[in-house]
Amino acid sequence: MKIKYYLLQKEENTKARYGTIETKYGVYETPMFMPVGTRATVKGLTPEQVKEAGAGICLSNTYHLWLRPGEDIVAHAGGLHQFMNYHGPILTDSGGFQVFSLAKNKQKDITEEGVHFKSHIDGKSLFLTPEKSIEIQNKLDSDIAMSFDECPPASASYEYLKNSIERTLRWAKRGKKVHCNSNQALFGIVQGGPYEDLRKYSAVETVKMDFDGYSIGGVANDGESKEDMYKAIDYSIPYLPEDKVRYLMGVGEPIDIIEGVIRGVDIFDCVLPTRIARHGQAFTRDGKINLHNAKYVKDLTSIDSECDCYTCKHYTRSYLRHLITTGEMLGGTLLSIHNIRFLIKLTEELRVAIKNNQVLEYREKFISRYVKKDI
Amino acid sequence: MKIKYYLLQKEENTKARYGTIETKYGVYETPMFMPVGTRATVKGLTPEQVKEAGAGICLSNTYHLWLRPGEDIVAHAGGLHQFMNYHGPILTDSGGFQVFSLAKNKQKDITEEGVHFKSHIDGKSLFLTPEKSIEIQNKLDSDIAMSFDECPPASASYEYLKNSIERTLRWAKRGKKVHCNSNQALFGIVQGGPYEDLRKYSAVETVKMDFDGYSIGGVANDGESKEDMYKAIDYSIPYLPEDKVRYLMGVGEPIDIIEGVIRGVDIFDCVLPTRIARHGQAFTRDGKINLHNAKYVKDLTSIDSECDCYTCKHYTRSYLRHLITTGEMLGGTLLSIHNIRFLIKLTEELRVAIKNNQVLEYREKFISRYVKKDI
Repeated sequence: MKIKYYLLQKEENTKARYGTIETKYGVYETPMFMPVGTRATVKGLTPEQVKEAGAGICLSNTYHLWLRPGEDIVAHAGGLHQFMNYHGPILTDSGGFQVFSLAKNKQKDITEEGVHFKSHIDGKSLFLTPEKSIEIQNKLDSDIAMSFDECPPASASYEYLKNSIERTLRWAKRGKKVHCNSNQALFGIVQGGPYEDLRKYSAVETVKMDFDGYSIGGVANDGESKEDMYKAIDYSIPYLPEDKVRYLMGVGEPIDIIEGVIRGVDIFDCVLPTRIARHGQAFTRDGKINLHNAKYVKDLTSIDSECDCYTCKHYTRSYLRHLITTGEMLGGTLLSIHNIRFLIKLTEELRVAIKNNQVLEYREKFISRYVKKDI
Repeated sequence: MKIKYYLLQKEENTKARYGTIETKYGVYETPMFMPVGTRATVKGLTPEQVKEAGAGICLSNTYHLWLRPGEDIVAHAGGLHQFMNYHGPILTDSGGFQVFSLAKNKQKDITEEGVHFKSHIDGKSLFLTPEKSIEIQNKLDSDIAMSFDECPPASASYEYLKNSIERTLRWAKRGKKVHCNSNQALFGIVQGGPYEDLRKYSAVETVKMDFDGYSIGGVANDGESKEDMYKAIDYSIPYLPEDKVRYLMGVGEPIDIIEGVIRGVDIFDCVLPTRIARHGQAFTRDGKINLHNAKYVKDLTSIDSECDCYTCKHYTRSYLRHLITTGEMLGGTLLSIHNIRFLIKLTEELRVAIKNNQVLEYREKFISRYVKKDI
């Protein structure tokens, strides 16, 4: 079965919405944060640990799996769920973002047909097209596939973006045409930078193609301002249908998740919680902390006294600091569990706030602690 | 309470014995393989994963914890069990082996008082004595502490070893004198290389001091032959009391565990299962396999069809190869779980074989597959 979104409640004071996504693995509530399992593994975590953190949909990267082990190997195992032992819904991205951000030396040749670039692993010449991206995702057998789009840099001009969104629309159409996995939803992607008319045009034209869900892309680029990110959302959301799920790609800063929810976004993903974990950083209600800091050497409190995750239940900052400073694998694992749980719990609390029409109060309360305190 | 060993059954055809160790965390059967948590963590595994693999006693390293985070930090947390969240028995080694194997440039200055050497981390001058080792272990609050001994290289001469075991005896006496943790057992260590008279003398004199258990040391050195290892065991065991547990230090090759059990050893430890796991190697009944090997790329079988571990229940060689070749943390974790379980299951099977007086048959059956097949 294809996933299906149900809008259950709209918050009174903002565009925030509470809903559910029905999947063959069960029903999951939105707003939702999706952990990222780039290469068919959320780095350092077993699927059980991912689920214990409250995860619903998990994300995996088409580009990375295309290169290694190759989509045919995954298909041979029975698809991505079987391959990685994640018996829950999986979303695969299109590879577009990675092609534009990871290509060796960032060099690529964009043609109407697709993108020529070199592998970030071995420099091998590669060619990714909208059709190829969908074909790979079909074979991976994820529950949600993404259309292949161009991801222009934050510095792209209005003129460049204007041409780019036209090409992305043509690519979306081509991808949809070859999409043939009836159990797999296909999402369209709205681009257009921080420009109101471009976002509107991109959204309206993408929606005309009738995708199973819509995502707002081009908001997690290097150098993009938060203001531009919020503009991109504000200018896209009004043109997206209410009965389809809305996905803000690559966004995982707590504040940005709250701002996204307020603007009508349902689902988020980001490598941030696991990436900063491996560098010793952890979210707390009072802001991020860095466990390398010597002041935690004898700190017998948990990372966050308000957190209910496995790590906070069983481990002190003192022990976690020891693991992080000695480079022990378990340090990255335990902090990743906490950071993922932190963002998922944030979305759980936002669901409650939506139901109580208190999203703005929630934001105020959260920001008053998270931003101001210096830890 | 101090741990206590109960000899429950002696095998008829060999010196193998079945017994139990009573601890404040419960009763554990021997023969037993103890996973190593060098720096207060079995690399990449949560304590729950360690226990799920069937672990009883877990080992941790005094030398490493002395350097980082320092025994006072561990004591501040309430001891090693609290610090690392391992609520099961823990054995700490004395630091002796690491001083002799890890000291920077392998340079050390052995005096009657102790050993001067430089830290392998930062080259800092350090001085470890029998008293200091026991003091650190007292603070770590492990369930079993080890006497501080000299660990001569496999190449040491008879004359050198003769003097060395005398010094180790004096060090054992000094350590025992300052040992003041009434909840902590203290084990003596038999040295003497492959020489019958030295092993006998070392064993007899060590036993005179009445330790809570005895270990056979100097058998896991670089360059030592298996023949010398078996000699060291054979020449030590007859002089160890039957009512105390016998521990063969640093041994974890499956064949060596079987040979050790046959010779009367009760407990074993080794970093081998976790170390080779991080390099992509896994034990199977037919010998070790290396998951880097391209032939596993589409192999949908588990590592070992006869294994009941978490990894073998849920993951294929194809997926594990993907994790290992891409350097994903989860690869090391999953292979470590399997390799630890493999050795623990081996000791579980040996217990059954002892009860049925079939240890020699067990060895024959195991070796016929493990050694000969080329995988």
